[in-house]
Amino acid sequence: MVRVVVIGGGAAGASAAARARRLDPSAEVTLIERGSMITHAPCGMPYAIGGLVKSQDDLMTYSPEEFEKERNIKVLIRSEVVDVDVEKRNVTVKRGGSIEKIAWDKLVIATGAKPLVPKIPGVELKGVLTMRHPDEVPSLKGHLEKAKTVAVVGGGYIGVEMSEVMLEMGKKVLLFEMFDQVLPAALDPDVAALVAEEMKARGVELHLGEKVVEFRGDDHVNKVVTEKGEYSVDEVLLAVGVRPDVDLAVRTGAKLGETGAVYVNEYMETTVPDVYAAGDVAEKVHRLTGRRVWIPLAPTANKEGQVAGGNAVRSRVLKFPGVVGTAVTKFFNLYIARTGLSEREAAQLGFKTQSALIKARTKAHYMPGGGVVHVKLVAEESTGRILGGQIVGGSQVVASYADILAVALQSGYTVSDLFFSDIGYMPDTAPVWHPLIVAARVLSRGKL
Amino acid sequence: MVRVVVIGGGAAGASAAARARRLDPSAEVTLIERGSMITHAPCGMPYAIGGLVKSQDDLMTYSPEEFEKERNIKVLIRSEVVDVDVEKRNVTVKRGGSIEKIAWDKLVIATGAKPLVPKIPGVELKGVLTMRHPDEVPSLKGHLEKAKTVAVVGGGYIGVEMSEVMLEMGKKVLLFEMFDQVLPAALDPDVAALVAEEMKARGVELHLGEKVVEFRGDDHVNKVVTEKGEYSVDEVLLAVGVRPDVDLAVRTGAKLGETGAVYVNEYMETTVPDVYAAGDVAEKVHRLTGRRVWIPLAPTANKEGQVAGGNAVRSRVLKFPGVVGTAVTKFFNLYIARTGLSEREAAQLGFKTQSALIKARTKAHYMPGGGVVHVKLVAEESTGRILGGQIVGGSQVVASYADILAVALQSGYTVSDLFFSDIGYMPDTAPVWHPLIVAARVLSRGKL
Repeated sequence: MVRVVVIGGGAAGASAAARARRLDPSAEVTLIERGSMITHAPCGMPYAIGGLVKSQDDLMTYSPEEFEKERNIKVLIRSEVVDVDVEKRNVTVKRGGSIEKIAWDKLVIATGAKPLVPKIPGVELKGVLTMRHPDEVPSLKGHLEKAKTVAVVGGGYIGVEMSEVMLEMGKKVLLFEMFDQVLPAALDPDVAALVAEEMKARGVELHLGEKVVEFRGDDHVNKVVTEKGEYSVDEVLLAVGVRPDVDLAVRTGAKLGETGAVYVNEYMETTVPDVYAAGDVAEKVHRLTGRRVWIPLAPTANKEGQVAGGNAVRSRVLKFPGVVGTAVTKFFNLYIARTGLSEREAAQLGFKTQSALIKARTKAHYMPGGGVVHVKLVAEESTGRILGGQIVGGSQVVASYADILAVALQSGYTVSDLFFSDIGYMPDTAPVWHPLIVAARVLSRGKL
Repeated sequence: MVRVVVIGGGAAGASAAARARRLDPSAEVTLIERGSMITHAPCGMPYAIGGLVKSQDDLMTYSPEEFEKERNIKVLIRSEVVDVDVEKRNVTVKRGGSIEKIAWDKLVIATGAKPLVPKIPGVELKGVLTMRHPDEVPSLKGHLEKAKTVAVVGGGYIGVEMSEVMLEMGKKVLLFEMFDQVLPAALDPDVAALVAEEMKARGVELHLGEKVVEFRGDDHVNKVVTEKGEYSVDEVLLAVGVRPDVDLAVRTGAKLGETGAVYVNEYMETTVPDVYAAGDVAEKVHRLTGRRVWIPLAPTANKEGQVAGGNAVRSRVLKFPGVVGTAVTKFFNLYIARTGLSEREAAQLGFKTQSALIKARTKAHYMPGGGVVHVKLVAEESTGRILGGQIVGGSQVVASYADILAVALQSGYTVSDLFFSDIGYMPDTAPVWHPLIVAARVLSRGKL
């Protein structure tokens, strides 16, 4: 009987535990989570803070009790793993006042990521908030509800989503981003400009290319200081990025990769025998470039968890092939999706690229209810191979455009392959020349 | 200077003419259309009849005048090609009262399809209507507006879409389908049952497995007679299918394929030198099976037109790789999409299949506004290769699920390849386990 211990009850950890149980009914599976919930969805936090989702508990798929009962997995919540012993094969768990040791034959580390907190003077002041775990929702909500003016530091996914939520809550929102565009890790400047335009139109005071250097206040923050000015604020949401939470992995002796996340192979094995890592704590392989990257997202975490959990009980039964960087966000009714490499990323990696940025509609021109959509397609100049796509548009459907492109990218599609793809049509769901097909045609520079 | 004549101003013909012009600025390009409009969209007809689209003119992308002026293409509307002479390389065109001959070096036949009219007694009565060309919209509208009860004969795409439109117009709708399910060419019975359920809930009187054998009336139809009963009606919409309009192609001596449509190779060349065919008149190759099929749809017509027009002026510059049968329709807010082979089709072709039919949501469980979606995934048992997918759900987005699958199918994906695809997520656009990924997991029967 194999004993599997999984550290972390989020997407990767819960998937790993469930998969191990499914593949080996006799295994003893223990899931250890620091917070109060498992199978939780941090991606839903903005909408729980904003009240669209009633309670942070709604962000769980299973309660710890259900998971224990239905899956026959031992679930320890509010339990912190404070040490890992690879020699003796156990973890030390702090739970309430007590400490216990739990033995494992296979260990899955799914400790996730944590917010990056830059070393800026005043960052320790009250009212300088970060967000990561649904457990924090009541506290964040309490802080933000009484604020009139909120500074968002960082124009990434969380910054964009929280700007919407805070405008909906009636706040004045100042967003500071040190790069001169929003979503710098996701989008090229031309596409990001479309998002920035909508953010400004909705009332966000956008400060792009403006680095925050200090927070001021006595006990509680009341001022954001940048290289360019000083701004009075009531609360600060720090959303400058996340980093992998590798502390426990390091204690096992597992090697970290060049990205700073835990190095794993396609079986989600770390460099330490019988120790797996999955989810945001682990490094990934980019399927387009073969390079090692760190793109911490929930769907990847789920699948990696599944692979790690499966392999923990049946050695090397599953392989994780990597990612192509598909990601989605939204600002009010503007949906933003991307996959593959941006043109800038591609250039940094040495690709010679061509791109096209087209404007189209999400339905036939004569049908009511269609939204405008912008598609940017990036291809390698010499081969026509598609390297990436970025889509911004006024309909949920544009998120799927990135999915279509993701599958195309994974498969090594050229612009011509995309053009000739059998993408469907009816007037209420797409134009007869689908925006992706139009983008391919334009990008072909007269060849199609 | 090459003279290109294109017969038919619909999707394929207009694309062919535009492409020939684009690739050869010196070519003399003539587009000949029987009706009054070109670049028209028959797929929008239901919504023009129902009034959601104001006028049939809105269904055109370009007016004949714009096309002439902007593209420098000679456009002849209300002009019927009554003969083709391959020896002398000309077409005989009837235009108003006059007849003229137009010479060609390259001929593109894009005559499309026409409604199938079964040989049923009474089918020639007034009030037994078919629909194909936007020109017919005012007449169809006139007929249907004064009717109280309308019989729709045929439960295919047009039958389903027109049922919605006529319910919206306040009619009583009886739908007769000789097969025992709606959308028999598109869906398996289990998925079609979901559509039928919604149709009944909205008030369509569904007569499945009930063959119409006669229409009765003095001058105007007033009764539909089936094997099972007689029904009083005011108008009949005959929508039992279409067939390729091959008359002119046959006159050129072009070979017809086994499907009855014009045989073409990947260059859209017919078996007659310098004669091309594109769009609904032409046979296609199914990319999954390599078999020749006839699946007449607008996006295919557009692309085939582009290939035919390009090759007409620059020999064999473009290749059309074929189709996988992606198609979309809707009934009110229920969107229906499919790609590849249905389970029944696959079985008929000798595949041993496995399938999964799952129910999921289009957004994270905790987000408001998500719809229920059903995904059926069909795979080959021995290899796990995905053969097809059918999706029915309460959101426009599910049409894109078929597109994602279409690209996967074209690329030879297995169930495992689909499962590990990097499909995106944010709570407002998809669940973290995307419905397609869930379907793949279920279909893997415990392997994933």
